[in-house]
Amino acid sequence: MPFNAPVEDFRFILERVIGFSDIAATVRHAEMTPDVTDAILTEGGRMCDGVLAPLNRAGDLQPARLENGVVRTSPGYAEGYRAIAEGGWVGMAATPEHGGMGLPMTLVTCINEMMGGACLALQLNPLMTQAEIEALERHASPDLQKLYLPKLISGEWCGTMNLTEPQAGSDVGALKTKAEPDGEGTYRITGQKIYITWADNDFSDNVVHMVLARLPGAAEGTKGISLFLVPKLIPDAEGKPGQANSLRVVSLEHKLGIHGSPTAVMEYDGATGWLVGEPHGGMAAMFTMMNNARLGVGSQAVGVAEAATQAALAYAQERRQGRAGGSGAIVEHADVRAMLARMRAETFAARAITLACAKAIDLGREGDGAARARAALLTPIAKAFGTETGINVADLGIQVHGGMGYIEETGAAQFLRDARITAIYEGTNGIQAMDLVGRKMMDGGAAAYALIDEIEADAKAARDGVAELAEPVWQAAEAMREATEWLLEHETADRFAGAMPYLRAFARLLGAYYHLRAAQAGVGRRRRLAAFYIRRMLPEQAAHIAALRAGPESVMALDAGDLSV
Amino acid sequence: MPFNAPVEDFRFILERVIGFSDIAATVRHAEMTPDVTDAILTEGGRMCDGVLAPLNRAGDLQPARLENGVVRTSPGYAEGYRAIAEGGWVGMAATPEHGGMGLPMTLVTCINEMMGGACLALQLNPLMTQAEIEALERHASPDLQKLYLPKLISGEWCGTMNLTEPQAGSDVGALKTKAEPDGEGTYRITGQKIYITWADNDFSDNVVHMVLARLPGAAEGTKGISLFLVPKLIPDAEGKPGQANSLRVVSLEHKLGIHGSPTAVMEYDGATGWLVGEPHGGMAAMFTMMNNARLGVGSQAVGVAEAATQAALAYAQERRQGRAGGSGAIVEHADVRAMLARMRAETFAARAITLACAKAIDLGREGDGAARARAALLTPIAKAFGTETGINVADLGIQVHGGMGYIEETGAAQFLRDARITAIYEGTNGIQAMDLVGRKMMDGGAAAYALIDEIEADAKAARDGVAELAEPVWQAAEAMREATEWLLEHETADRFAGAMPYLRAFARLLGAYYHLRAAQAGVGRRRRLAAFYIRRMLPEQAAHIAALRAGPESVMALDAGDLSV
Repeated sequence: MPFNAPVEDFRFILERVIGFSDIAATVRHAEMTPDVTDAILTEGGRMCDGVLAPLNRAGDLQPARLENGVVRTSPGYAEGYRAIAEGGWVGMAATPEHGGMGLPMTLVTCINEMMGGACLALQLNPLMTQAEIEALERHASPDLQKLYLPKLISGEWCGTMNLTEPQAGSDVGALKTKAEPDGEGTYRITGQKIYITWADNDFSDNVVHMVLARLPGAAEGTKGISLFLVPKLIPDAEGKPGQANSLRVVSLEHKLGIHGSPTAVMEYDGATGWLVGEPHGGMAAMFTMMNNARLGVGSQAVGVAEAATQAALAYAQERRQGRAGGSGAIVEHADVRAMLARMRAETFAARAITLACAKAIDLGREGDGAARARAALLTPIAKAFGTETGINVADLGIQVHGGMGYIEETGAAQFLRDARITAIYEGTNGIQAMDLVGRKMMDGGAAAYALIDEIEADAKAARDGVAELAEPVWQAAEAMREATEWLLEHETADRFAGAMPYLRAFARLLGAYYHLRAAQAGVGRRRRLAAFYIRRMLPEQAAHIAALRAGPESVMALDAGDLSV
Repeated sequence: MPFNAPVEDFRFILERVIGFSDIAATVRHAEMTPDVTDAILTEGGRMCDGVLAPLNRAGDLQPARLENGVVRTSPGYAEGYRAIAEGGWVGMAATPEHGGMGLPMTLVTCINEMMGGACLALQLNPLMTQAEIEALERHASPDLQKLYLPKLISGEWCGTMNLTEPQAGSDVGALKTKAEPDGEGTYRITGQKIYITWADNDFSDNVVHMVLARLPGAAEGTKGISLFLVPKLIPDAEGKPGQANSLRVVSLEHKLGIHGSPTAVMEYDGATGWLVGEPHGGMAAMFTMMNNARLGVGSQAVGVAEAATQAALAYAQERRQGRAGGSGAIVEHADVRAMLARMRAETFAARAITLACAKAIDLGREGDGAARARAALLTPIAKAFGTETGINVADLGIQVHGGMGYIEETGAAQFLRDARITAIYEGTNGIQAMDLVGRKMMDGGAAAYALIDEIEADAKAARDGVAELAEPVWQAAEAMREATEWLLEHETADRFAGAMPYLRAFARLLGAYYHLRAAQAGVGRRRRLAAFYIRRMLPEQAAHIAALRAGPESVMALDAGDLSV
């Protein structure tokens, strides 16, 4: 299925909607002129369209498999991975000190999105390595950094995250994997981990696992968790992969989608590991990995939304049926047009939210505390809303295809199957929503109110040009302010029943806001799409807020017996 | 995965929500006392739980396959089908004259729902035969009826519907299959049909295809279509399957779900066919088949919603994670509880709507014109909302399972894959919505207003007991009245952009109404579930109405170029 990386949409959002110039104005990213960012996006897009997208279907049909303990990857994946690595995209976010491109997170997010849209199952591999690189940059000793970072950044070696255990999923604190000092400065890691994405492959020289485990005598719960680096092959003094470590891939899961991505059960049997960061400081390191991975997951799902939208539109323009006007193609039918418009409008909204989040991360790294708070606020929204968008848009894509959508050869169903995982991994969307209404409101709502203030001010200013769009956005911001007040009047535990509705309401407001900014940029098409979103979709915000305001008792009054038939 | 047919919920809805006693008060169904209906539901439920549900996973893993032109069905399906046939469930709706049970559609809908929940892929087979039986009862000559009906009703032979062709999907009028008189009172049928559900099997003695085709010189479009009966094996004078007809299964589709149900491309090469009904009267006969099949599809999807809800609840009660209160199981988490509550509340709403539609069909058959109009109004809602419920509830079921939901062995993903087709076949949901705002409003809104009046009157009366629930339902009815007025002020073509929102808004109102009636029945659990639905979900109605009121130009102003990236 052809894929066209949405380079032009990225450019437009960066320049006209979220204000990338603020990033280019920093010393760190001073070289990020429009010419340079254009070249980067174009180069990345070319690889996605030409190399990665053609691999997407083969990975679905011929999943990664385990043969005598070794993972065999899908046809063409080795070449696809090589293209990613050689383009520098594995290490695109890493500091130049160890060979990285040092790109701002805003551009990294664009590239991750387009790689995810082209081939989600393969893109997951560098996404995991990116997270590991960041964790090592922030928490590992200089020796570990020197040994591992250049190999990970170049893509010669791949990285993984090992968090989950059978009894410890969302509740990471329940994990039992042990780490015992061996008296030589290293540790013996023993335990079983599940759901390990890209636990192994047949195209990298080594695989470097980041493993959460407990030191002897560690406290229970999350405070007793430490992070360890556990390579598949232990490097020798020159950094050449040497002796095999005591670990193995036990089995691969049979999943709904992302068949090309091997999801493994891993067994560590006294494997040699190196401590990363402080003893018992594993959660902090893990959050470093997970926070940006969360944005990464949101944006990869937006990529799938883009791919699904392109495929559905192409089909709707080609397929003739009934007495539709114009070309006679089904795109002329109002119901089909409405589905396609929703797909496009939602994809734009989710993309703008992920990029606004990325921008806040970039400015936060320059020491801007307000930007850091904004990044913290937007991360769970970007993850949960981005992934719901990926799923919902892929689902609409099936419907646009009619009967063809249900036939696997068409490819529309694969988008749904692939995207479905994104609402679950890196913290389920429910966990994201709890994070938003809990931890992210510990500032008394300061970050939320600051964003709402900004939206209201901008909407007020927009009344001059696009009053009929600006007014509902202002109203929605005011409704969000009141919803936030409602939230803060309640104990954290009493917020959780309304956590998802609150998150979705906020996302609807943000989507409308970025559409409004797009409309202000004045191109007719942008304005029509904004009108569609603001008039047809923004009203959903009120329904979400009503669900929030129904309060915890509307949910918790129903016990398990009430829910059975 | 264990399945418990929701017999108790059916009883409750029949007796306390939709008023089954009106049906038992008719001469035709005078024997349908509570004891009898109980016995029927219990018997049907026993088969679903004990025989059909255990086949569901095997059908997914070992799809039907084509071997040398013959369809080989999934393991256990032959035995499952035999249980359905021997229970009399294939012919449960058929007139006793030819061996049917003559059950009211209300009970048929219950049985179809529970069979669909237990094993959707297999249940599709008798659902198709039911539609064929009804078409023959209504339109076939006495000779054809005498020969075919007893075999179909007993389940010895199976039926299929052959509508779609490569260029003629939702646009049935574009079909090209030819029927030429052979001078012996029969016809030679030639053409290719696609998406033929259960086109063949290895457990029935014959397969009887209902095929839409054109007679020589027939008008273009739907007015030139006739219906033909085309058996796989031509029966001899005694009704024994004899000579093979000139037709064949060309190939089976590789589908997202319902793997146990063979979906075929059929080739008719001068096959012998018998005319059913009048020449060029095929569309009327087809609508007979399709209308009840549409309700059947809605209810089978509600069955999947039931199965998905049961599975998710069982998992949530068993799975321990985090510091949840009470049992420590994830069902104690507010976000998980909210998902389960939505699943249960939505399943109840969709079930009540399908049963209200079935009741209207039953009373309509007694010559009650208002009931017939109501059945016509409710059919597209029951189909589209029932199937969206099946899909959305199955999707929530995956989310409740977390990572396990993405692993195929769990079974949660199969519910989504299986249910996904129901929004597409028997007329896509978009077609249903267009039917609702077009054909079904040709009475000037009489049927819609009559239902709204009834809801308002009941809500008013309910203010005494459950005021806090009755008031929002009354308001929602009033909003629906205004939305209907808006609709009728617009040309039919201008309604289509808002057709799905209108349908969804109506479904939300109906769901709230039936929940209100359940709450009035006074059991605590019913009241708590109603409160959840009315407070947390009914507000979505306003968002749908806002989308409707955004008008056609909000959609049609966006051309295909606007929708590309």
